[in-house]
Amino acid sequence: MTARRTAFFISDRTGITAEMLGQSLLTQFDPIEFQRITIPFVDSVEDAEAAVEQVNAAVIEDGARPIVFSTLVDDDVRKVIGKMNALVLDLFEMFIIPLEAELGLHSSHTVGKSHSTANFSSYNQRIEAINYTLTHDDGATNRNLEDADIILVGVSRSGKTPTCLYMALQFGIKAANYPLIPEDLQQMKLPPVLLQHRSKLYGLSITPERLQQIRSERRPDSKYAALANCKFEVQAAEAMMHQASIPFLDSTTKSIEEIATTILHTAHLARRIY
Amino acid sequence: MTARRTAFFISDRTGITAEMLGQSLLTQFDPIEFQRITIPFVDSVEDAEAAVEQVNAAVIEDGARPIVFSTLVDDDVRKVIGKMNALVLDLFEMFIIPLEAELGLHSSHTVGKSHSTANFSSYNQRIEAINYTLTHDDGATNRNLEDADIILVGVSRSGKTPTCLYMALQFGIKAANYPLIPEDLQQMKLPPVLLQHRSKLYGLSITPERLQQIRSERRPDSKYAALANCKFEVQAAEAMMHQASIPFLDSTTKSIEEIATTILHTAHLARRIY
Repeated sequence: MTARRTAFFISDRTGITAEMLGQSLLTQFDPIEFQRITIPFVDSVEDAEAAVEQVNAAVIEDGARPIVFSTLVDDDVRKVIGKMNALVLDLFEMFIIPLEAELGLHSSHTVGKSHSTANFSSYNQRIEAINYTLTHDDGATNRNLEDADIILVGVSRSGKTPTCLYMALQFGIKAANYPLIPEDLQQMKLPPVLLQHRSKLYGLSITPERLQQIRSERRPDSKYAALANCKFEVQAAEAMMHQASIPFLDSTTKSIEEIATTILHTAHLARRIY
Repeated sequence: MTARRTAFFISDRTGITAEMLGQSLLTQFDPIEFQRITIPFVDSVEDAEAAVEQVNAAVIEDGARPIVFSTLVDDDVRKVIGKMNALVLDLFEMFIIPLEAELGLHSSHTVGKSHSTANFSSYNQRIEAINYTLTHDDGATNRNLEDADIILVGVSRSGKTPTCLYMALQFGIKAANYPLIPEDLQQMKLPPVLLQHRSKLYGLSITPERLQQIRSERRPDSKYAALANCKFEVQAAEAMMHQASIPFLDSTTKSIEEIATTILHTAHLARRIY
């Protein structure tokens, strides 16, 4: 066992799929520190040979063979990569064979069919969702709120903006968000414009301690970031959401991906794009 | 062979990895229309049994067994899912065994280690990149441009905003963007504020035909969307970028993922987050 290894993500397209799966597998081997290198757009034998050289250099440097996660559709390219001095795990190869058998069909072996722009309507849905979400960030406008798929509410810095952007970009969901400001919280009333769209509301909450930590990064030693104020805001926001029967989740220990997926799932929204 | 099949993405966490890999594999089997269903957060035997029921219902409806892409770390949960009447491809199982052998180490079998928020500094980098990118969208401000990792330039609707948001969210990259407006294009001069940061500039171009199509969605029958105007803007923008030695790429047939990855790769930027 070596304490240091290099992990390569090699793909004929972006490498994003290989990175995502590889990364989640590597986190299962905590004691090892992986240096991660992505080599995208390897779609010719020449590119593959250049990648082999890079991998061989890592063998020498680490004194151990690298781990390679690859998604390579072309058989010739995959053959070159497969012969490297490395543990090569090709996602395409490991899955395409059982799929072909199950479906009784040869796969098309076409590079770059995912993330396709070929479908203009799905491209448009994505762009429209992004534009909608940008326009409706942080309560910027009440116009066309009826077009929202979801409206997130929560105190400042509870994670609304990143979650909305993620939902728009990755799911094609039109996600507005509306900050609960001190005035709302003191009156213990949701703004009337939001109550008109109650069925689309979804709350984000957070622990006061975490909120203090996040707000202190931006405005250290402010009343805004003070623990007492964070406690008041969080408690008042949660009480309001309870009162109005708005579902909400605690974002404290969740990543943006987890928050977005949980909302999609519990609010019964469907992804518009894949 | 059936013309219709259901594909399930079942995960103990978000299901995003299973969706991404599954989706890119399914696009290789074009003739079949897949209905896609994601079941996230399956982290108990009870959840697994509920998923089995859902899958069994699809068997009856389709008259063919579904394809299941799963990422399940817990052995008991995986056992329940593995026994379903479906082609179950568990990403975790297929890769973890060769990895354990290669690394001479047992994996931690801990659910939900990817997309972690445990690392506060990496969470902060992501949020900071998103805030920076939102503040520096569409030339909104020239302040702190020196903090940008990259500054995208291009005509209106060439894909700058979605690309910048993607880079911020997924890579933790601070990405500003600056529209080339008709005044810039007529004078054939990049704004002086941009020339100060020439090494960070990266251009997006697009074919005039595609630009016309995209602009017409927003403002049909406008001068803005007219083919002649699109031609002028694109040609002038490309000439300016050539003159100033700014690298640029054609976004026409590329997805947001492909544009973002290509820029990351050719501008030699490193992902800040995984």
